[in-house]
Amino acid sequence: MILLDGKKTSSDIKDEIAIKVAELKQQGEKTPHLAAIIVGNDGASRTYVNAKVKSCEKVGFNSTLVELPDTISEADLLAKVEELNNNDDIDGFIVQLPLPKHIDEHKVTLAVSPAKDVDGFHPESVGRMMLGLPGFLAATPAGIVELLDRYDIETSGKECVVIGRSHIVGSPMSVLMWRNSKIGNCTVTITHSRTKNLAEITKRADILIVALGKPEFVSADMVKEGAVVVDVGIHRVEDASKKSGFRLLGDVKFDEVSPKCSHITPVPGGVGPMTIASLMMNTLQAIDMK
Amino acid sequence: MILLDGKKTSSDIKDEIAIKVAELKQQGEKTPHLAAIIVGNDGASRTYVNAKVKSCEKVGFNSTLVELPDTISEADLLAKVEELNNNDDIDGFIVQLPLPKHIDEHKVTLAVSPAKDVDGFHPESVGRMMLGLPGFLAATPAGIVELLDRYDIETSGKECVVIGRSHIVGSPMSVLMWRNSKIGNCTVTITHSRTKNLAEITKRADILIVALGKPEFVSADMVKEGAVVVDVGIHRVEDASKKSGFRLLGDVKFDEVSPKCSHITPVPGGVGPMTIASLMMNTLQAIDMK
Repeated sequence: MILLDGKKTSSDIKDEIAIKVAELKQQGEKTPHLAAIIVGNDGASRTYVNAKVKSCEKVGFNSTLVELPDTISEADLLAKVEELNNNDDIDGFIVQLPLPKHIDEHKVTLAVSPAKDVDGFHPESVGRMMLGLPGFLAATPAGIVELLDRYDIETSGKECVVIGRSHIVGSPMSVLMWRNSKIGNCTVTITHSRTKNLAEITKRADILIVALGKPEFVSADMVKEGAVVVDVGIHRVEDASKKSGFRLLGDVKFDEVSPKCSHITPVPGGVGPMTIASLMMNTLQAIDMK
Repeated sequence: MILLDGKKTSSDIKDEIAIKVAELKQQGEKTPHLAAIIVGNDGASRTYVNAKVKSCEKVGFNSTLVELPDTISEADLLAKVEELNNNDDIDGFIVQLPLPKHIDEHKVTLAVSPAKDVDGFHPESVGRMMLGLPGFLAATPAGIVELLDRYDIETSGKECVVIGRSHIVGSPMSVLMWRNSKIGNCTVTITHSRTKNLAEITKRADILIVALGKPEFVSADMVKEGAVVVDVGIHRVEDASKKSGFRLLGDVKFDEVSPKCSHITPVPGGVGPMTIASLMMNTLQAIDMK
C-alpha cells in the first residue's frame, strides 16, 4: 500500500511555485497577490484562512487578509467583493465559507469576478470546467487530480466511483474524472444519499473518491482489493488521550481499508494540503487571466 | 412496452405554451421573440432551424431568422451576435451549429449573452445547471427530463447509465439525472469511448440514455429487462425502398431492444421534438431573465 502523501506533494508544488515567482520578480513582473475575505470568528475557517496566508508567504505571493465582523450586512460584504474585483493589484481572491446565515452565499459567489475566482466556485468557472475551456478549476477536485497525476495513477478506462454530489467536491470531481485528459477518461459513477446498494457499487471502483462528510463511513467490505482510495472528509472528534483534546478522522476507516488499497490518502495530510496547493496554482494562473 | 412519444408530448407542451402566450398578449405583455442565426446552407441545419421557426409560429412567439453566407468572417458573425444581445425586442436566440471551419464555435458560444442563451450552451448556463441556480438548461437534456416526467418515470435511487460524454448531451444529462430533483436522484454512470466492458455496465441500467452518435450501436444483449431506454441519436441512412431515398435510425437497434424495455423513445419522434419543445420553454422563461 502506497500512501498518497498530500502534505509532501503540496510542499513540492509550493517549492516549484516559489521558483516561478522568484523568476517573475527577477524579470520585473508583478508579484502574484491573493486576497481572502473572512467573516466572523469561526475557528475552523480561521485555521483554513491562516494556512492559505502562510502558503502565500511560502511561495512568495503577496497576500491580503480582509477580516470582517459577522454582523456585516450582505450589501457591505458585496461592496467589499466589488472593491477587490476592481483592485488591479489583486490577482485572485476567495471568500471563506461558510458565511453567517443572514448572507446569501450564492449571491456572494456570483459577485466574485470569474477572472479572479481562484476557488473556482463561480458558475462561469464551473461551466468552463464542464466544457473543457480555460478557467479556474475548483480547488479541491483539482488538487486531487494533481495528486493522482504526481503518483502516476493510471485512470484511463478505470471505474471511478464518487461518493457525494456536493457542488464543491463530488460534482466537479466526477466531471474531472470522466473528461478526456491525462488524469481522466474514467467510467465514472456518482453516488449519494438516494443511492441503493451503495457497498455493491463502491466495490466496483478501481478509484474510489469519498466526499460525503461522515466520519469513518467507508469500511473495508465496501472497497475492492487493490483500489485507489481518496478520502476528502475531515472531522474533529474528541479524544482525551490527545494533548489537543481531539483527533482528526476522514470519511474512510483508514485502519481497516488501507491494507486493501494500492494507494490511499491519509487524513490529515492527504487531500487538505492539496486544496491549498491548488489555490496557489490557481493564483499563479490568475496573473494571466486579466 | 410503452413508447415515450416525444412528438405527441412536444405538441402538448407547445399547446400549453400557446395558451400562456395568448394570456400574455391579452394582458398587454410583450410577445416572446426568438431569433436564430444560421450560417451557410447545410441541409440538416436548415431543417432544424426551419422546425424551430415553425414551432415559434405554432406557440405564438415572434421569430427572426438571420441567414448569413458561409463566407462570413468570424468578426462579422460576432458583431451580429452582439447586435442580438443588445436588441431589447429579442428575448432569446440561438446560433445553429455546426459553424464553418474558419469560425471558432467556442468564441461564438461565449459571445451570446447568458440572459438570452436559450440553447443553454454558454459556460455560465452550464455552471448554473451544475450548481442548481436559475438559468437555461441545455435543450436536449432538459427535453429528455421533461419527457420522463410526463410519463411519470420513477428515477429516484435508480441506476442511470449514460453513453456519451458530449458537452451538449451526455455531460449535462448526467448532471440532471443525479441532482436532487423530481426527475433526478439517480445513481449515474457516464460511459464513453474509453469505457471497458461497456455491455456489462449498460446492463446495470434501470434508465439507459444513449447519446454516442453511432447508428444502431446498442443491441438487446446490452439492455436489462424492463429498462427505460432513451435514444438521442439520429442518422440518415440510404434506403432505396423509401420515397425519400433514406430512412432515419437512432443509436439503438429499436426492433430488438424495444421488446425488453418498459419504456423506449422512437427515432424519429422521440428526443428530437422534445429538444424543440425545450427551446420553446426556455424562450418563454427568457422573458423573465432580462
